[in-house]
Amino acid sequence: MNKTKEKVNAAIIIIGNEILSGRTQDVNVATISKWLNELGVKLEEVRIIPDNENSIINTVNEVKKKFNYVFTTGGIGPTHDDITSKSIAKAFNLLHGYHKEAYDILEKYYGKSKFNTGRKKMAKMPMNALLILNPSSGAPGFIVDNVYCLPGVPSILKSMLGGLNNKIKGGKKISSKTISVQTVESEIAKSLEGIQYKFNKVEIGSYPFFRLGKIGVSIVIRSTDKKKIDDCYKEIVSFLKKKKIKLIGRK
Amino acid sequence: MNKTKEKVNAAIIIIGNEILSGRTQDVNVATISKWLNELGVKLEEVRIIPDNENSIINTVNEVKKKFNYVFTTGGIGPTHDDITSKSIAKAFNLLHGYHKEAYDILEKYYGKSKFNTGRKKMAKMPMNALLILNPSSGAPGFIVDNVYCLPGVPSILKSMLGGLNNKIKGGKKISSKTISVQTVESEIAKSLEGIQYKFNKVEIGSYPFFRLGKIGVSIVIRSTDKKKIDDCYKEIVSFLKKKKIKLIGRK
Repeated sequence: MNKTKEKVNAAIIIIGNEILSGRTQDVNVATISKWLNELGVKLEEVRIIPDNENSIINTVNEVKKKFNYVFTTGGIGPTHDDITSKSIAKAFNLLHGYHKEAYDILEKYYGKSKFNTGRKKMAKMPMNALLILNPSSGAPGFIVDNVYCLPGVPSILKSMLGGLNNKIKGGKKISSKTISVQTVESEIAKSLEGIQYKFNKVEIGSYPFFRLGKIGVSIVIRSTDKKKIDDCYKEIVSFLKKKKIKLIGRK
Repeated sequence: MNKTKEKVNAAIIIIGNEILSGRTQDVNVATISKWLNELGVKLEEVRIIPDNENSIINTVNEVKKKFNYVFTTGGIGPTHDDITSKSIAKAFNLLHGYHKEAYDILEKYYGKSKFNTGRKKMAKMPMNALLILNPSSGAPGFIVDNVYCLPGVPSILKSMLGGLNNKIKGGKKISSKTISVQTVESEIAKSLEGIQYKFNKVEIGSYPFFRLGKIGVSIVIRSTDKKKIDDCYKEIVSFLKKKKIKLIGRK
């Protein structure tokens, strides 16, 4: 019998000068993270690195040993600055060349006469890589060992995640409850600390916000154990009532 | 005479479970990066890590040796999950306790009677840390060696950067030009590769976009040498004309 692992973790490596330069706002971290939550995988680290071969090789080699799953985004297109595939091959000491299945998919997608050098480049992959199919724009991503390489364009990346659901073996699903209150953090800090100390199997986060001119705090309780979340939730609501702090939302 | 350094680099460490869980969308990377560009500092790596003491200590100790400047965001508020200050003290083997200047600022900001335990916590810093003043909400950030600790709330962080301008010694400023064209990447990949090979002192990035139902590519040229950017720009515009590819924007 396969027992569900208590804890399965992951890291993301965002490959892209455009994120580091501030030109492009990353949104892929949140997309991948929410998808992983549903699968019972906890995202524990993100690195954003440049389109540089050594950076990619060193980061991949370091991170793949520390986490169950690694996802890279970016750098798998047809231009000279797309070097993820070649760099991953080097990180794993694998040959890099045309991948038969990817070549066939891309040739069919573009048509023989329009399958030019740039497009052919996207069929080059580390030897024996497994493909991640792309329902939006043809060019597949790929998997080597525990490293999953995805494109950087958010809409395309999003469309490819569903196809991976049965490849990811998650642990217990992480649930959460959020209580939003009309107060400032320093008014609840001491009580929250006491509750966190008592409920040491849940993770209590406190996040100030400014919304529609009002200030408030969101208290987020996270755990793989729903019962413990509920118990902790009750205790927080009870101290808020005692302190006469106004609840403005819960979910 | 002080000669301007050719290259000055930086890294950002985002400390926050809320970013890793996908609950909160980070926007601080782009803010800090654009501000650094103006100062001639190149952002070369970002790490997003959990609110965990060991993660903070290990990441800070690794990153501070590799980059001229390190910026951390998050974890300097009054609640139990705000552990940046204590962890930075441990990373540098410094005592952690009330910082006279920070204490005075906070006591004045809140008023003696409202200066409670949570608020006092924000006056605790690594021994001899330099303060980063906070014009929005009182609580200062701090500097230890080359590590600059800022809050996570975007509007507050933004308001504190200006005060750091004269503390950062940048190198040559990085300039950029962007050409947006109505085509797909694979149509320009080969020519761009040739131009990148010829102009090896500039960095040419190619970024596909989908905007108002149209597809296109933004070609971004970056360098500390404006003359080289201009030369490269001319060569790109000339090949686009030859290929009859429509320019839809330049800046």
